[in-house]
Amino acid sequence: MKRVIRAPRGKEISCKSWQQEAALRMLMNNLDPEVAEKPDELIVYGGAGKAARNWECFDKIVEALRNLENDETLLIQSGKPVGIFKTHPMAPRVLISNAMLVPAWATWENFWELEKKGLTMYGQMTAGSWIYIGTQGILQGTYETFAACANKYFGGSLKGKLVLTAGMGGMGGAQPLAITMNEGVALVVEVDRSRIEKRIKTKYCDVMVEDLDEAINMALKAKEEGRAISIGLVGNAAEVHPELVRRGIIPDVVTDQTSAHDPLNGYVPAGMTLEQALELRKTNPKEYIAKAKKSIAEHVRAMLEMKKRGAVVFEYGNNIRRQAYDEGVTDAFEILGYVPAFIRDLFCEGSGPFRWAALSGDPEDIYKTDEKILELFPEDKHLARWIKLARERVAFQGLPARICWLRYGERAKAGLAFNEMVRKGELSAPIVIGRDHHDTGSVASPYRETEAMKDGSDAIADWPILNALLNVASGATWVSVHHGGGVGIGYSIHAGVVVVADGTDDAAFRISRVLNNDPGTGVMRHADAGYEIAIRTAKEHGIKMPMLK
Amino acid sequence: MKRVIRAPRGKEISCKSWQQEAALRMLMNNLDPEVAEKPDELIVYGGAGKAARNWECFDKIVEALRNLENDETLLIQSGKPVGIFKTHPMAPRVLISNAMLVPAWATWENFWELEKKGLTMYGQMTAGSWIYIGTQGILQGTYETFAACANKYFGGSLKGKLVLTAGMGGMGGAQPLAITMNEGVALVVEVDRSRIEKRIKTKYCDVMVEDLDEAINMALKAKEEGRAISIGLVGNAAEVHPELVRRGIIPDVVTDQTSAHDPLNGYVPAGMTLEQALELRKTNPKEYIAKAKKSIAEHVRAMLEMKKRGAVVFEYGNNIRRQAYDEGVTDAFEILGYVPAFIRDLFCEGSGPFRWAALSGDPEDIYKTDEKILELFPEDKHLARWIKLARERVAFQGLPARICWLRYGERAKAGLAFNEMVRKGELSAPIVIGRDHHDTGSVASPYRETEAMKDGSDAIADWPILNALLNVASGATWVSVHHGGGVGIGYSIHAGVVVVADGTDDAAFRISRVLNNDPGTGVMRHADAGYEIAIRTAKEHGIKMPMLK
Ligand SMILES: NC(=O)c1ccc[n+]([C@@H]2O[C@H](COP(=O)([O-])OP(=O)(O)OC[C@H]3O[C@@H](n4cnc5c(N)ncnc54)[C@H](O)[C@@H]3O)[C@@H](O)[C@H]2O)c1
Ligand SMILES: NC(=O)c1ccc[n+]([C@@H]2O[C@H](COP(=O)([O-])OP(=O)(O)OC[C@H]3O[C@@H](n4cnc5c(N)ncnc54)[C@H](O)[C@@H]3O)[C@@H](O)[C@H]2O)c1
Repeated sequence: MKRVIRAPRGKEISCKSWQQEAALRMLMNNLDPEVAEKPDELIVYGGAGKAARNWECFDKIVEALRNLENDETLLIQSGKPVGIFKTHPMAPRVLISNAMLVPAWATWENFWELEKKGLTMYGQMTAGSWIYIGTQGILQGTYETFAACANKYFGGSLKGKLVLTAGMGGMGGAQPLAITMNEGVALVVEVDRSRIEKRIKTKYCDVMVEDLDEAINMALKAKEEGRAISIGLVGNAAEVHPELVRRGIIPDVVTDQTSAHDPLNGYVPAGMTLEQALELRKTNPKEYIAKAKKSIAEHVRAMLEMKKRGAVVFEYGNNIRRQAYDEGVTDAFEILGYVPAFIRDLFCEGSGPFRWAALSGDPEDIYKTDEKILELFPEDKHLARWIKLARERVAFQGLPARICWLRYGERAKAGLAFNEMVRKGELSAPIVIGRDHHDTGSVASPYRETEAMKDGSDAIADWPILNALLNVASGATWVSVHHGGGVGIGYSIHAGVVVVADGTDDAAFRISRVLNNDPGTGVMRHADAGYEIAIRTAKEHGIKMPMLK
Repeated sequence: MKRVIRAPRGKEISCKSWQQEAALRMLMNNLDPEVAEKPDELIVYGGAGKAARNWECFDKIVEALRNLENDETLLIQSGKPVGIFKTHPMAPRVLISNAMLVPAWATWENFWELEKKGLTMYGQMTAGSWIYIGTQGILQGTYETFAACANKYFGGSLKGKLVLTAGMGGMGGAQPLAITMNEGVALVVEVDRSRIEKRIKTKYCDVMVEDLDEAINMALKAKEEGRAISIGLVGNAAEVHPELVRRGIIPDVVTDQTSAHDPLNGYVPAGMTLEQALELRKTNPKEYIAKAKKSIAEHVRAMLEMKKRGAVVFEYGNNIRRQAYDEGVTDAFEILGYVPAFIRDLFCEGSGPFRWAALSGDPEDIYKTDEKILELFPEDKHLARWIKLARERVAFQGLPARICWLRYGERAKAGLAFNEMVRKGELSAPIVIGRDHHDTGSVASPYRETEAMKDGSDAIADWPILNALLNVASGATWVSVHHGGGVGIGYSIHAGVVVVADGTDDAAFRISRVLNNDPGTGVMRHADAGYEIAIRTAKEHGIKMPMLK
């Protein structure tokens, strides 16, 4: 029997306060068929990222939340409710630890074995911490990355710039829209025609082209005219990219979102049709992998050549550099990761993927918060553009929600304003406020968020632990610590936090603590590593750092 | 210039409350020359376990604590004070994370490199979390282990039992006294005469014997008469143990505390004098190691044979099984670790190494708390024996302190009673209450505390993280998360907690939360793993576990 879970809407609550109710609704929302990838298996997103260990655990979590007192705290161990303890009203109502392993045992093999025994669960980032809000986060993250690139290299816009990339899959499909949202020309190479068609249908991509010459002409013309357009080119990046180099066509920006991290199931080798590739994958996986890796090497060599000839080239977290490096492309890491290239400057300001959801279920509540954001930060054109575009282009999934990147100071300001709106009855129910674990102070991940730190502290994992401990001490509604996330077992430790704006003074107090301290640890972490922007931010905002000179 | 640090004594405080003052005094106490192994290098114990990263950090921590408001929280990242944030009065005043690394980088090599760069620090267990109290802890832990063995196999006492062990070094030197405290006969083989002499001088060991026959006769006679005595036999365990087997002398209990974990610097091979060994160590370390490993194998083979013939044989955390196994003794792991053998039953009751220190510096305060313990738990003969012996035998180091193992329920009872004593002025200043990280709910360590868990959950590290998060949520005074500890980088994650009894209502509230919840997570963790004693304890005390049937 299929269970369909959907968060309750409206003002009536089944828990003893909005704190517990928020956790209940967000857990359920993560499993809403509109939100979750495989709700039957409790899988929310990201391969195997789950919201609860199994259905029995889910039911017991729901029961525990409904009975939880306002001075009790529920403990979740990898998706299983293991204990309820008496704490105090200012303490979080839920504390979560997902997939943590003793380091010497932190391999996928051990994880799978422990998972099979029913002892652990993969929580990804926001799956097991109950604050995933669907694909809006991916679109916004991609938008933000290209915007940061535009800021750094092109004076704030991609207008008149050609961006070359590949892959229009689950996440990569956000690229064409994210590029045109930044006013650029997107040329996206995708080997699977059906993927492009899907993105044309949802208006994430403007046109599909089969012929390379046609695509080039269209792209160069739009670039010249400063016209934003996204072009999906049916083709293989390992063929198209070298051909562009041969023709001397060097884009302004180059990146990639083929699933190069997985050479068997994610990357299609050059020199064959998609059908032939799918056949070979089955009949001779070894040969397939060898061919795929060779193609990845060609692909990256072309990217490196474009870089040499002036293009801004970066990896977007698909591990394509490492794959090429292993295949003999020894200079693959001359291509920078997207975090050190663009995102780190944002992290230094305490900026990150702030998000909130309307517990009422009413889209109007989100639209009103959109207005509030525009009103609070009238000078931020970039933010305004996103809010406007999001309203036009993003369909809500599950509980209506919004994401945008806000800096240290701005987050608390927004959170307190939302709480006021709830207090005054301008919104029909409380708002839940959280963020991705992929944030400024909350993650240690040497192949992604903490790649190439200035002081070499990439692998130091004290920071996300301090972030989690401090969020508990700040009165968050729930706090989580995870291992694995987007880069997999062994490769990251990160923390999540959620706080509820229910219109009370108590909530205002919690919000002011959590939404300052949480990004504050990010500014601190980057200032400690020696980043100028972070040091300046810390000083401007009076963040106390005893060792800062 | 040598700095000598010693905690302030008395009622005058230099911080804004006793919470901060307690952290300040305990940090300083950890570096007291009476307490610390190498105070100049800020090393407290356990090889390289430090209290602060360097002297500059130490000074800044002191300054930060002195200025810290009663609603602020200081963050310590591997011994460095990195930030101060506004929280609230019920939040901890200090949050600590030491030596945490992203798992795939969690090796000694990476740690050392990061340490050299000044980015991390080894915190051991109680060194970097400011609650080490000197060697009393080792004596008590050893006493408790032999007591647990006595309970399990010999009706509560080692009277009339012969215990064979080896090694009278820094920690092993506690063995003879711990065994006689349990009324047994200790035969301790030690290759280094000077080590025995030292223990004779401090009355930890009764007699030193050079001759095997004499030692055997003395031991068997005492065993027959039920007389407690400890005999230090100058000899090599890899020779003595096999000889005992040949003679058919099978002790009742066998364990070991040679430093077998380190075959170059810790274990002396058979077939040579100590002087010859020291010489070979320098001139030919490779040959030395080969010989040492061969001897370890002989040593363990004799232990296994004794086990076959009825002795209770266990490893006491020196990795001797692994060393022998690698040398071809394939059945080495038939010898059980001391935790699954004895300590786990205690952990299942929420019992663990509870400790407290008198911030006044006045030994009388501790003697009064000793009396209080005897008064609170009149039926616990074992506890009474320890308290009495500790008073006679243990010299205080630094601030007077006491350790004893207390169960779930008992810890809160004791803590609240101490707080009352402070309130009423029976003690001259507040008491600080903490514990080792080697405790029931606070550690994941597959080669030690979580070896051979019933459900196979040895490597699951969610538990110590939940323990730390919950202790923060419970209003502890300071909370820490560490990586490494006694078993080294990669092999454990564990958490610490301290709470101050300053005689206020506020302290009573915190104590009742922390001292119930902290051991409560231990009962929960073991009940979740299926241990009957823990399930019973959870039910008896009404610990809420949603999934417990
Ligand atoms: N923040 C981050 O670090 C981040 C964010 C998003 C995506 N990613 C990474 O980006 C990659 C893509 O993610 P996804 O969810 O879209 O994956 P996906 O598997 O859904 O999509 C990959 C797409 O690439 C296409 N493709 C494969 N080989 C090709 C080739 N040679 N030429 C052209 N197209 C080819 C496939 O047909 C598919 O449509 C993954 O590796 C993911 O981990 C990282
Ligand atoms: N809870 C725990 O897990 C725990 C507690 C205490 C000690 N330990 C372990 O126990 C071991 C001992 O600790 P320590 O601090 O006393 O070490 P140490 O190095 O100070 O002492 C070891 C002693 O063993 C003697 N020795 C070496 N080889 C010998 C041999 N062949 N025969 C007889 N004596 C020999 C040495 O002369 C030395 O006195 C270590 O491996 C330590 O890690 C573990």
